[in-house]
Amino acid sequence: MSKLIQPRTLKGFRDHVPASMIPRERLIDTAREVYRSFGFAPIDTPALEYTEVLLGKGGDETDKQMYRFSDHGGRDVALRFDLTIPFARFAAQNVPSLGTPFKRYHVGPVWRGENTQRGRYREFVQCDFDTIGTESPLADVETLLVIHELFQRLEVGPFTIHVNDRKILTGLLERLELVDQAVPLLRALDKLDKIGPEKVSAEMQAEAGVSAGAAEEVLALARLEGDNAAILDALPPLVEGSELGAAGVERLATVLAGAVAGGAQADRLQLDVAIARGLDYYTGIVFETTLDDLPAIGSCCSGGRYDDLASLYTKERLPGVGASLGVDRLLAALEELGRLEARSTPAEVLLVRFGDQHDGELLGLAAQLRAAGLAVEVYPEARKLGAQLKFADRRGHRLAVVVGDAEWASGSAQLKDLASKESSEVAQGELAEACLRRLGR
Amino acid sequence: MSKLIQPRTLKGFRDHVPASMIPRERLIDTAREVYRSFGFAPIDTPALEYTEVLLGKGGDETDKQMYRFSDHGGRDVALRFDLTIPFARFAAQNVPSLGTPFKRYHVGPVWRGENTQRGRYREFVQCDFDTIGTESPLADVETLLVIHELFQRLEVGPFTIHVNDRKILTGLLERLELVDQAVPLLRALDKLDKIGPEKVSAEMQAEAGVSAGAAEEVLALARLEGDNAAILDALPPLVEGSELGAAGVERLATVLAGAVAGGAQADRLQLDVAIARGLDYYTGIVFETTLDDLPAIGSCCSGGRYDDLASLYTKERLPGVGASLGVDRLLAALEELGRLEARSTPAEVLLVRFGDQHDGELLGLAAQLRAAGLAVEVYPEARKLGAQLKFADRRGHRLAVVVGDAEWASGSAQLKDLASKESSEVAQGELAEACLRRLGR
Repeated sequence: MSKLIQPRTLKGFRDHVPASMIPRERLIDTAREVYRSFGFAPIDTPALEYTEVLLGKGGDETDKQMYRFSDHGGRDVALRFDLTIPFARFAAQNVPSLGTPFKRYHVGPVWRGENTQRGRYREFVQCDFDTIGTESPLADVETLLVIHELFQRLEVGPFTIHVNDRKILTGLLERLELVDQAVPLLRALDKLDKIGPEKVSAEMQAEAGVSAGAAEEVLALARLEGDNAAILDALPPLVEGSELGAAGVERLATVLAGAVAGGAQADRLQLDVAIARGLDYYTGIVFETTLDDLPAIGSCCSGGRYDDLASLYTKERLPGVGASLGVDRLLAALEELGRLEARSTPAEVLLVRFGDQHDGELLGLAAQLRAAGLAVEVYPEARKLGAQLKFADRRGHRLAVVVGDAEWASGSAQLKDLASKESSEVAQGELAEACLRRLGR
Repeated sequence: MSKLIQPRTLKGFRDHVPASMIPRERLIDTAREVYRSFGFAPIDTPALEYTEVLLGKGGDETDKQMYRFSDHGGRDVALRFDLTIPFARFAAQNVPSLGTPFKRYHVGPVWRGENTQRGRYREFVQCDFDTIGTESPLADVETLLVIHELFQRLEVGPFTIHVNDRKILTGLLERLELVDQAVPLLRALDKLDKIGPEKVSAEMQAEAGVSAGAAEEVLALARLEGDNAAILDALPPLVEGSELGAAGVERLATVLAGAVAGGAQADRLQLDVAIARGLDYYTGIVFETTLDDLPAIGSCCSGGRYDDLASLYTKERLPGVGASLGVDRLLAALEELGRLEARSTPAEVLLVRFGDQHDGELLGLAAQLRAAGLAVEVYPEARKLGAQLKFADRRGHRLAVVVGDAEWASGSAQLKDLASKESSEVAQGELAEACLRRLGR
C-alpha cells in the first residue's frame, strides 16, 4: 500500500458538512426566491478573470489580497475578490444588448488571501442584487422592500433597516463650506458608534483642521433622533442653501413613504443620518440592516445608490442601486440566536430496514411518501432497530417508520416521533398523511 | 477621463446572462430537490486545495489541465478539476465524525485549462450525488430512482437508463481466461457504438493479442439484445464458472426489480451489457442515461459503484455508488429540443408606470400580487406605454398590468396577455387571481 496523502484543507478555507450547508442553502434559496419575486434575474460570471479587469483603478488593500497567477497561456489572471467589479465588467459588455433597466442578482464565491484572524475566511459567498440604468426612486424603494421581505422570511426576529442619503451629508458640508474636508470628516464620523462624540470631534479637528464649532455642527446632524417624520422636519435648516441637501431630504421622504406603501412595516425603517457607508462610492440613498436581538454583529445587509457602475469599462453611464446580503454573518447570527436547527439530513423520515425480504415493498412505501412531498431516506443496511434509531437521532430525522414482519402481514407501520419518542400504529395507506400531520404540514 | 479597460472574459470562460442562467438555475434547483427527497445532504468544499491533495496518484491528462500556482504563503495550490477527488478528501476527513451510510450531493464549479475547441469550457458546473459506506443493493436502486425521478421532472421527454454490472464483463473474461487482457479488450469494446463490431474485433486481436474466436465471444456479450428478462436469462452460460460473473447477474436482477418496485417505469431501464464506463474505477453497477429524442448527445447522467472512494487519504474502506449529472449537456439538449423558454426575467408580470402620482398605489398593487405568489416587476421609469410593452416583450414577461388615471379612479386595471395580445379589464381586488388564471396556475 502506498503512503497516504494527508487529507487537509488550506488555511482560511473550509469544508461545509451537511449541518452547516443545509441552513446555508436554505438562506440562499430564500434570498433567490425573494429577488426573483421582484423581477431580479440571475447572472453568473467567471471565477477567474484578467487581472487587469479586476484591478480596476487598483492600489487598494484588496488588490494585495488577490489570488493572482499566470495561466497556461501566460495570461495574468486572478480569482475575483467580490461580485461588484465582475458585474461592472459584465454590464459594460452585456447591457448594450440586454437593455436597461436591468435587475440582476448574483450568488457566488469570492476569494481574498487576507489575514484569517477573527473568523475570517479566504473563500466566502457573496449574494448581491442591483438595479442599474435608472435613477428612479422606485428602484430605491424596491431595494428596501426586498431587504424587508427577505429578513421577514429568514425568521431572524425583529430587524431595523437604517436609511440615509449621502446627499444630506454633502448638503451639510456645503452649508458649512467644508466640502473639501469631506473625506477626513466622514471618516471620523463613521467611527461615532465605536469611539463616541468627543473623540470624533477631536479627530475632526486634528485630521480635517476644522474648528470645534464646525465639528459640533457635523456631529449635531448625526445626533438627530426620534421618528422619521421628526428627523425629516429637522433636516432642512441643517442643509439650508444646498440644492443637493434639499434634494436628499426630499428623496428620503419619497423613498420612506414608498417603502411603507409597498408593504414595509414603518417601524422597521429608521432614518439614521450618521450612516455614510464609505467615502466615495455611494452618492444617494445608503442603508444598513441590523438585528434588534443582536445589534453587535453589525449590518447583515448593506448597500446604496451609486452614480455610475462601470465607468472603468464603458462610456455609457449606468447609475444604479443595490445591496449585498451578508450570508456568513446572518448564519452566525442565526446560530447565536439559537434559530438554527441541528440537522444533518434533509430527509424528515427514515424508513427502517431489517433485511432484504421486503425490499420491494419498502421501496414502494418510500415512493408513496415521496409522492406526498416528504423527503425520505431508506436505511440501506439490515441492522438492529436500536442502531437505526440512534442513526436517525444523530442525523436529525424527525420521524422513523418501522415495518416488521407483523406489520407487513397486517399492512400497517409503526410511526415513531423521534423528538417526543411517541409511537403509533398507522395503516400503510394512511402513512403519508400521518407523517405530514406529525410534521405540522 | 482615464483610458477605459477593455471589458472581456478569458478564453474558455463565459458570462451567463439571465436567458442562460434562468434555465440553469431551474435545472440545478430541480436536481437538488430530488436529491434531498431521497435524503442526500448538501456539502461544499473549497475551490482551492493543496495540489498534493488534488493530484492524488497523479500522472493523467487532467493533471496537466489544473490551474496550479503558489499562494501568498508559498503553498503549492490548485483549483479543483472535479468534485470526486475533493469528496474523497472530504470523506477521509469528515466521515469518521459524520458516520456512515453517508449520502451527499455537491453542486459547484470546477476548472480545467483544456482545449476550448468543440464547445468545451474551462469552467463548468458539476452536480454529483453519492452514497458511501454501504454495499447494499438498495443504494444502487436508489441511485437509479433518483435519476429516473430527476429526468421525469426535467421534462426532457422519454429517456433510457442503460444499466450494466462490471462484474459481468469480468466474469466473461474469467471464463475465457482473458482477465489479463481486460484493459485493451474493454477499451476496444467501449468503441463498439462508434466503429462497429468488425473494427472492434480487429482491435481486440491486434491490441490484446486474442484469437478471432475469443474476440467474437466478448462481442457476443455486447450483442445481447431484447428485454431485460431475456438478457438476464442469456447471461449465466456466458459467465459460467465465474463467481464474480454469477454475482453480477444476480445483483443486476435484484437492482432492476428493486427500481421497478420503487416506482421506476420498467421500460426506462435497459440492461446493456456493453457499458463498461472506463477501465478501473467502477467495480459493480454502471449506468448511462440517454435521451430517446436526442441519443447523439450522449449520456447526460452517468455513474456506478466503486469499491473504495478515499484510499489515497485514509485506510478506512468506503465503498459507494453515485452519479454525475451533465448540467451543460442537458441544457444543450433542452435547447436543441426546443424545450427552453426564451425568458430574460423571472417575473411573470410587468406593472406599467406612467408617472410618480400613483407610485404608492402601484407599489401596493405589486405587493398584493407578490403576496399571491406572483413574481412582479414594476417598471421604474415613466415612459410611453408602447415602450414599456416592448420592454416586457423582449424580456419575456407573460403579462402586463396597465393602470392609467381612469383605472385608478374606478379601481380597475387592464390585464394584457403578451403572448395572445388579449386585453381585459379586471377589478384591482381580483387582479392576482386573474393573473394566476392567465398563467394556468
